Amino acid sequence: MVIRYPNGKKYIAAATKTAAKPTSSTFSNRGKTLEDELNDSNEYYTSRGIAVIHKKPVPIQIVNVRYPARSAAVITEAYFKTASTTDYNGVWQGKYVDFEAKETKNKTSFPLQNIHDHQVAHMSQVHEQGGIAFLIIRFSLLDRYFVVPFKNFIEKWKRMTEGGRKSITLDEIVEISIELQPGYQPRLDYLQAITGMVEHPTGERTERQES
Amino acid sequence: MVIRYPNGKKYIAAATKTAAKPTSSTFSNRGKTLEDELNDSNEYYTSRGIAVIHKKPVPIQIVNVRYPARSAAVITEAYFKTASTTDYNGVWQGKYVDFEAKETKNKTSFPLQNIHDHQVAHMSQVHEQGGIAFLIIRFSLLDRYFVVPFKNFIEKWKRMTEGGRKSITLDEIVEISIELQPGYQPRLDYLQAITGMVEHPTGERTERQES
Repeated sequence: MVIRYPNGKKYIAAATKTAAKPTSSTFSNRGKTLEDELNDSNEYYTSRGIAVIHKKPVPIQIVNVRYPARSAAVITEAYFKTASTTDYNGVWQGKYVDFEAKETKNKTSFPLQNIHDHQVAHMSQVHEQGGIAFLIIRFSLLDRYFVVPFKNFIEKWKRMTEGGRKSITLDEIVEISIELQPGYQPRLDYLQAITGMVEHPTGERTERQES
Repeated sequence: MVIRYPNGKKYIAAATKTAAKPTSSTFSNRGKTLEDELNDSNEYYTSRGIAVIHKKPVPIQIVNVRYPARSAAVITEAYFKTASTTDYNGVWQGKYVDFEAKETKNKTSFPLQNIHDHQVAHMSQVHEQGGIAFLIIRFSLLDRYFVVPFKNFIEKWKRMTEGGRKSITLDEIVEISIELQPGYQPRLDYLQAITGMVEHPTGERTERQES
């Protein structure tokens, strides 16, 4: 039974909070965040000379900095800024790769409010410029991972801006994306998944062609 | 007449300090930093659909965050981290572009201590991966700007690691780089400067070929 605070937020007993994640009986994830998994994968890519892809630092607005004698500068007041671009970018075989990674606890759809307008604008510019733009979406409670090419994502985004639904259903995600099977090394081989997108750079959803 | 402090530093009267920069009789720079000039240039490139290149946020190690009721989260303790990559990257005609920008007040050489080991390692990886890696160096007191291809830069870096001089002389810079002529729109057309590097991706310093 779920106990809720007056504001509707779930009450979680302290003991449960510190315990292991109860959602899955496999050991596939072990509590790592999608960011951890992608950083591990990117380290693997770099170490093998496969690609050079990094997460960008979190953008911060610095207001106050103190300079204690003989010590490093301390930032004493700063605020989180909204990212104007995506979180990850880099180079793979000379080509520019750019993506946003998002997790959802939703089991049936991906809410589009997870993505910001200016991130969509950025990915659109990247796509126009011939870069490889996509999203990586993790349904954390289902332990499923999807690479959604920007070309396919933008159709669902447009549907929303034209008054349609504010999410992409899981069924639709399955249809428009490449599902990742998590492995050991690398954890998430998303470059393998997008290989089809690159071999047919002209676009027309060739990544889903039967051959 | 230049008046100097005992340590050799120029004395500048308070009134002059707030006035326009006294170093040049042109209005070409107007006190902007190299970062400002590059951000302006990148905005121009994006607005014209020429390229999508951004400066990465400054990397920060966040130690403490306060969440005041009804207000945005405040970072109350954080430290600057050393950047593990370069400052700028993005996509230009499908290709990955990656560079570091540095200013020096030195008039005769560029001190290599301005660049970190791990930045050189990063540019080296990018270069191996087929990305376009370079440095933009501004001699601020001379008002001169240079694009130094990574291929040429690394030779001078190696010289240092093998016990040679810890800087690149201005004469050498002139020889191994493409000099930028600052303009109005864009302020620094560095993509125009590297066009030669790209048309001959095999390398051999073709950007300096006479044709």
